[in-house]
Amino acid sequence: MVYFKDLSNIQYEGPQSNNSLAFKYYNPEEVINGKTMEEILRFSVAYWHTFTYDGGDPFGAGNMQREWDKFSGMDLAKARVEASFEFYEKLNVPFFCFHDVDVAPEGDTLTETNKNLDEIVNMIEEYMATSKTKLLWNTANMFTNPRFVHGAATSPNADVFAYSAAKVKKGLEVAKRLNAENYVFWGGREGYETLLNTDMKLEQDNLAKFFHMAVDYAKEIGYDGQFLIEPKPKEPTKHQYDFDVATGIGFLRTYGLENSFKFNIEANHATLAGHTFEHELHLARINGLLGSVDANQGDTLLGWDTDEFPTDLYTNTLAMYEILKNGGLGKGGLNFDAKVRRGSFEQSDLFYAHIAGMDSYAIGLKVASKLLEDGVLENFVEERYDSYKSGIGQRIAEGNTNFKELEEYALGLGKIQNTSGRTEKLKMIINQYILNALT
Amino acid sequence: MVYFKDLSNIQYEGPQSNNSLAFKYYNPEEVINGKTMEEILRFSVAYWHTFTYDGGDPFGAGNMQREWDKFSGMDLAKARVEASFEFYEKLNVPFFCFHDVDVAPEGDTLTETNKNLDEIVNMIEEYMATSKTKLLWNTANMFTNPRFVHGAATSPNADVFAYSAAKVKKGLEVAKRLNAENYVFWGGREGYETLLNTDMKLEQDNLAKFFHMAVDYAKEIGYDGQFLIEPKPKEPTKHQYDFDVATGIGFLRTYGLENSFKFNIEANHATLAGHTFEHELHLARINGLLGSVDANQGDTLLGWDTDEFPTDLYTNTLAMYEILKNGGLGKGGLNFDAKVRRGSFEQSDLFYAHIAGMDSYAIGLKVASKLLEDGVLENFVEERYDSYKSGIGQRIAEGNTNFKELEEYALGLGKIQNTSGRTEKLKMIINQYILNALT
Amino acid sequence: MVYFKDLSNIQYEGPQSNNSLAFKYYNPEEVINGKTMEEILRFSVAYWHTFTYDGGDPFGAGNMQREWDKFSGMDLAKARVEASFEFYEKLNVPFFCFHDVDVAPEGDTLTETNKNLDEIVNMIEEYMATSKTKLLWNTANMFTNPRFVHGAATSPNADVFAYSAAKVKKGLEVAKRLNAENYVFWGGREGYETLLNTDMKLEQDNLAKFFHMAVDYAKEIGYDGQFLIEPKPKEPTKHQYDFDVATGIGFLRTYGLENSFKFNIEANHATLAGHTFEHELHLARINGLLGSVDANQGDTLLGWDTDEFPTDLYTNTLAMYEILKNGGLGKGGLNFDAKVRRGSFEQSDLFYAHIAGMDSYAIGLKVASKLLEDGVLENFVEERYDSYKSGIGQRIAEGNTNFKELEEYALGLGKIQNTSGRTEKLKMIINQYILNALT
Amino acid sequence: MVYFKDLSNIQYEGPQSNNSLAFKYYNPEEVINGKTMEEILRFSVAYWHTFTYDGGDPFGAGNMQREWDKFSGMDLAKARVEASFEFYEKLNVPFFCFHDVDVAPEGDTLTETNKNLDEIVNMIEEYMATSKTKLLWNTANMFTNPRFVHGAATSPNADVFAYSAAKVKKGLEVAKRLNAENYVFWGGREGYETLLNTDMKLEQDNLAKFFHMAVDYAKEIGYDGQFLIEPKPKEPTKHQYDFDVATGIGFLRTYGLENSFKFNIEANHATLAGHTFEHELHLARINGLLGSVDANQGDTLLGWDTDEFPTDLYTNTLAMYEILKNGGLGKGGLNFDAKVRRGSFEQSDLFYAHIAGMDSYAIGLKVASKLLEDGVLENFVEERYDSYKSGIGQRIAEGNTNFKELEEYALGLGKIQNTSGRTEKLKMIINQYILNALT
Repeated sequence: MVYFKDLSNIQYEGPQSNNSLAFKYYNPEEVINGKTMEEILRFSVAYWHTFTYDGGDPFGAGNMQREWDKFSGMDLAKARVEASFEFYEKLNVPFFCFHDVDVAPEGDTLTETNKNLDEIVNMIEEYMATSKTKLLWNTANMFTNPRFVHGAATSPNADVFAYSAAKVKKGLEVAKRLNAENYVFWGGREGYETLLNTDMKLEQDNLAKFFHMAVDYAKEIGYDGQFLIEPKPKEPTKHQYDFDVATGIGFLRTYGLENSFKFNIEANHATLAGHTFEHELHLARINGLLGSVDANQGDTLLGWDTDEFPTDLYTNTLAMYEILKNGGLGKGGLNFDAKVRRGSFEQSDLFYAHIAGMDSYAIGLKVASKLLEDGVLENFVEERYDSYKSGIGQRIAEGNTNFKELEEYALGLGKIQNTSGRTEKLKMIINQYILNALT
Repeated sequence: MVYFKDLSNIQYEGPQSNNSLAFKYYNPEEVINGKTMEEILRFSVAYWHTFTYDGGDPFGAGNMQREWDKFSGMDLAKARVEASFEFYEKLNVPFFCFHDVDVAPEGDTLTETNKNLDEIVNMIEEYMATSKTKLLWNTANMFTNPRFVHGAATSPNADVFAYSAAKVKKGLEVAKRLNAENYVFWGGREGYETLLNTDMKLEQDNLAKFFHMAVDYAKEIGYDGQFLIEPKPKEPTKHQYDFDVATGIGFLRTYGLENSFKFNIEANHATLAGHTFEHELHLARINGLLGSVDANQGDTLLGWDTDEFPTDLYTNTLAMYEILKNGGLGKGGLNFDAKVRRGSFEQSDLFYAHIAGMDSYAIGLKVASKLLEDGVLENFVEERYDSYKSGIGQRIAEGNTNFKELEEYALGLGKIQNTSGRTEKLKMIINQYILNALT
Repeated sequence: MVYFKDLSNIQYEGPQSNNSLAFKYYNPEEVINGKTMEEILRFSVAYWHTFTYDGGDPFGAGNMQREWDKFSGMDLAKARVEASFEFYEKLNVPFFCFHDVDVAPEGDTLTETNKNLDEIVNMIEEYMATSKTKLLWNTANMFTNPRFVHGAATSPNADVFAYSAAKVKKGLEVAKRLNAENYVFWGGREGYETLLNTDMKLEQDNLAKFFHMAVDYAKEIGYDGQFLIEPKPKEPTKHQYDFDVATGIGFLRTYGLENSFKFNIEANHATLAGHTFEHELHLARINGLLGSVDANQGDTLLGWDTDEFPTDLYTNTLAMYEILKNGGLGKGGLNFDAKVRRGSFEQSDLFYAHIAGMDSYAIGLKVASKLLEDGVLENFVEERYDSYKSGIGQRIAEGNTNFKELEEYALGLGKIQNTSGRTEKLKMIINQYILNALT
Repeated sequence: MVYFKDLSNIQYEGPQSNNSLAFKYYNPEEVINGKTMEEILRFSVAYWHTFTYDGGDPFGAGNMQREWDKFSGMDLAKARVEASFEFYEKLNVPFFCFHDVDVAPEGDTLTETNKNLDEIVNMIEEYMATSKTKLLWNTANMFTNPRFVHGAATSPNADVFAYSAAKVKKGLEVAKRLNAENYVFWGGREGYETLLNTDMKLEQDNLAKFFHMAVDYAKEIGYDGQFLIEPKPKEPTKHQYDFDVATGIGFLRTYGLENSFKFNIEANHATLAGHTFEHELHLARINGLLGSVDANQGDTLLGWDTDEFPTDLYTNTLAMYEILKNGGLGKGGLNFDAKVRRGSFEQSDLFYAHIAGMDSYAIGLKVASKLLEDGVLENFVEERYDSYKSGIGQRIAEGNTNFKELEEYALGLGKIQNTSGRTEKLKMIINQYILNALT
């Protein structure tokens, strides 16, 4: 069956509108610096938000109108697979991502759950055989089921740890089978509700052991996808151990995992941690740990994860700037970990929202690319740190000096001259580049 | 003397750069719907941030490099007046704003303070006689001096109340003399540090009495400028009584002041209160209380008033949208209650920053104007509420129904059909209009 | 059947523990200033959190272990009623509260929904006939069902407005029948997701019309309970019209509703709006609008409504201070709009949590009562504002002066003397009173 | 001269008040588990907040009333030293802390600055010779002077780096001379205003080099105090590199500094980073990096560093719990990095505030000590993680298992049984221990 009809309605009434499902800015075949937009942006549809999410929120029941909701159980799971590949094709998107429970319902036992999963993975594999759309990453959902109430790898209950291990083992096998470019760990419940009842040391030690075992098992089965940790500071837990990129760096280094993992960085998780998205990308990049991106946006006046589609051109531009400076995303991609607002409950909104995100990131790419081509920011920064290229600055940068020499030097200085950081001017330059994006 | 030299250096290296102090987007003479940009935008320079602010912050000493800082005392005050009118002229800005203590130093007594103020006001008056730049508003600073530690009109000390009255009386006289279009009240210390030592009822009653006396005195002297309250939720106080526009509406109505005051709405104060800027403008507008604007922006990841120059094109567009829907700002204007960042300490940054703000608002105006011309949002909204134009909806809107009739109607309804709110599509339309702003 | 067994396990191992379900501090019969604790505190159990809430959160499925969950449909609804009255009796609590959909499932049509509700209300009425526990308030849930996706009384869809009217009409009839002391309006969806698609003026006008119709209908049927508006700033909506008490005051006065409504103030809603709980209570009190209380607490480091049981002795003390200054809560009460944490999923946690809340409020009452008896804060405040009792201060307070007279007075003042606000000392006094609560 | 007179006025009117400058709860000689309160708590007065802070805030001028303000220049500096030792003695406090510029004014050149500092350090050394009060730590202020506008060790200007090195070199020499137990680094400006102009990698590399040089120089001169990094997320910078403890762990490990530094953890910095104070202490503790404490508190409803005196008994109890679990603070102490509120401008408020903080921490110590003595939390936690002590859990904890074995185990499991986390009960137990603190 056809799940998405009447696409002629999907149009933007803006100044460039027309009557087809055409992107206004995203052109997968457009070449920028030797690569196509599709190759650079590596867009991915998030299965859970697009095909599983029902619109429920803490104060509201599910309300999404979906053609596949006439089915239930395994039939529903299969209908979603069908619908998903129809969607990927119509949107012309190169990747998708999923959690195990997004695609197949849990059974009464782990054996049955795995059986359901196998059946759906078979079906996905068949669809992938004739589709251009590949698997960016898969993961195991270890937060929804009540058994994970106190955590998965950090549960106080060893049975839960074991169960989680079995889930990830299966997930790695699926990853290998479907050629997932990455395998992601988001520890939604790996944290605590209150320190009063928590042994944080034991929990973090266990989490590290879990990661080591995952690395070992991937090697054992020959799965060579990239491992990603996805930081988030809180929600649903009061405190999550993978708070942000900086916290993740400390954790990985403490437990000798820094060569086995990179980060999957989500925009809305960044803002919940008090950072800009570009900060998180930048910090991961300069530490060689930028793996992949969950492309969405939050509302900084709200205190929870809104997972909105990423339309902010400033954020998308600065994100693409970091990604281009990183030499691209490698095995990673731009996954739309974004859901339509609850009020956007029609199927057409799925298209509007994805197109909005893809067009916005395409603009971001163009603006970032032009900024780099002109070197407008890089030149400013280069000049700003000029004093570290010669004289005492060079000695500092090369580690060839000490406090005594520096004191001697400082005692000989007159009034120190600094220069303006030019924040306002630089912000206006960004505006100018955005306004000229299409010229 | 000339305070601002070498303006040829003030240039943006963006794609449209040139070597003159030229705005890229703001053109005061450009006509939009029958009015010039200058008439619509009514830009104003804030005296305190531009000529008095020294760059100090809670952890740093003053660092701004200003030509006039070679002077002190009344000579400094006079040099600032000279510099300010040079700045207004070079920037070609139609308005300025000041607090009493920005322009003239306080003396040892109120008499001496008033004498200082008179001397400077004389000088300002002379400059204004030959300048196009007019006074958008003045106000009395009733928060810096230690006497206002516990508030001004809400001080527990009646002497402070009296002193504050004398300050505002003088301020109104200055407003009349300099033809200020508005007189502003920002109650920076009108609030509390802790409820434990506070009689909020008495304080709010006193504040209302103070406002009534101000209205009476303005009438008495024939000053017919507009009175404005400027909401802010907190900082420096723990809680400020004029928390936001909604709070202000309640206060004005409780004390019978709703016909004597409008609001001066600041972008960064809005975000500190948990609102978008456009929310505050919208709420004031639909209540007929949108008076004037403090055009700046904050950083929603920071919890204090950063008073940055307003470069965000989204915010400026939506602000101008509200202002155009309001039929313009009337006596109000767009005052740059914005300071250069502490790292932007050179004089040229004052130009960069104002140009950034003015250009950004000019873009906002153009985009908002096009949005309204095309009716793209208005038509969507109109259609969305269509059900209130006939049948039961019309009866509701006209107040011609009751619960009994409505229940009867509801009992006859089948499944209720809603339509999508289309948030994502509308956001992308805003992007499209911004990207096409210059075409 | 018996739903709550083995209560001997409900014990606190603290220094005063014993093996019975005994409160350590709450003693309903203890008399404080002529009234019993039960009469003053008027505790109420929230039906939804205690008997309906399943433990689900945005990232987790329901996990609560409840004896009644072996039932479904109307049988489940009835089992909950049975369990609830058993719980009220065992906890010895004088009140409960509910939303319509908490107690009875919705049917396919409004007619069927009302039929289900009638059946359960009959049952509740029977139980109430032999129970000491009364109905503090009921309300209509107008946020969970998908039809309310864009609001209820503020929906852009007139059918939804009508349906909402029918729900509240029914709710008022239930309130009358069950002698509810109050009827509450929480407008969880009465707000907006984005201004881009919203006609705020029409929505607020409609909301006001809705409230007027409710008042009219209550008069018509002779229901004389108190009407309460429950402010909340956001969640689930981006912006809720009843943002906080101050906003509510403005709304009520704008629409001539200020004599028909009071506020039901929730602690966690206060903190989400950037206020302390005591601030909201204080502001309502001095405006004569303190109606009832949703006694819970949030986590100010989290940005969503956690609805935790209120154990913070500072907050509870200052809340009881405001309530005692208000002369008590009148028809209102202390409703535990609080849920056990998701990790506290055993039935015994329901007792632990309620006992924690009730004991904590009992302490708060004792401390507040002692503070007032000693006049320790009141005397400080009285003295602090002493200057308004004579001389120029008295003239100010009585409205018998003007700016001219005040200026003359101010010109004659020497250096103004203020006195310390003593915040630190006052905070330590609160500590001392808490530490001596039991002596 | 005597700076603090009339101490008989310093009294609390609470239930235990009397007319002497007596602590109600802090008794330096009281022995708890073999150590005196003084030995355990190691209270320290912060020179800057107590003797240098003038009461200024971003909207207000200095207003503190201080006996020593009749002096200026070096005379003022000397008067402050005199006053400070009088204060330490009257408060009977064992430690103090200072920044270089707190105690001595900067000169026109670094040579002159060092000369001023030497003169005052001589004087402090003399006072210390006859005082029980020792130096907990000193540090160099590298954020106030305009030269540090873009950072110190992370400045884009190599001259500033050199100057900073000279400052810390001098600071270490002072530390050695005055036997400072610790030397602290707070990088108030070591961060960025905007990424647009920042080379974060170079800045962080430089910062690490700076720390290594400091360690080397300390070794060279034989200074064996403990080195401490003080995390803070932001303010005055938009982003500070030492964001929080977790970030600091990553930084130290990335640059091989983890054996040379511990953390100085400030309560208000924790909350600005979105953490509880006890979280930061706990995380540092389990990583062996808990060095010292800046004992203050913030206002979580405000977004800036309020540095209030720590009166919250919950926070202080849980802080002392972590400290006792850490085996005490070692060379560290509880430094009151706290300022009286601006409204508490009388000298007596300095006593009220310190007494409030010391009494509150004394209570916290007693409660925490009793909690540990009874093992009430520890036993709960011990039992909660019981499953890791035998069977599969033990194999996990010992690292003797793998995904295959765990899957096999998991496949054999029936429905997993978790137990309640008992958050509400544990919170009430904390209440009970606080309420029984004095019994």
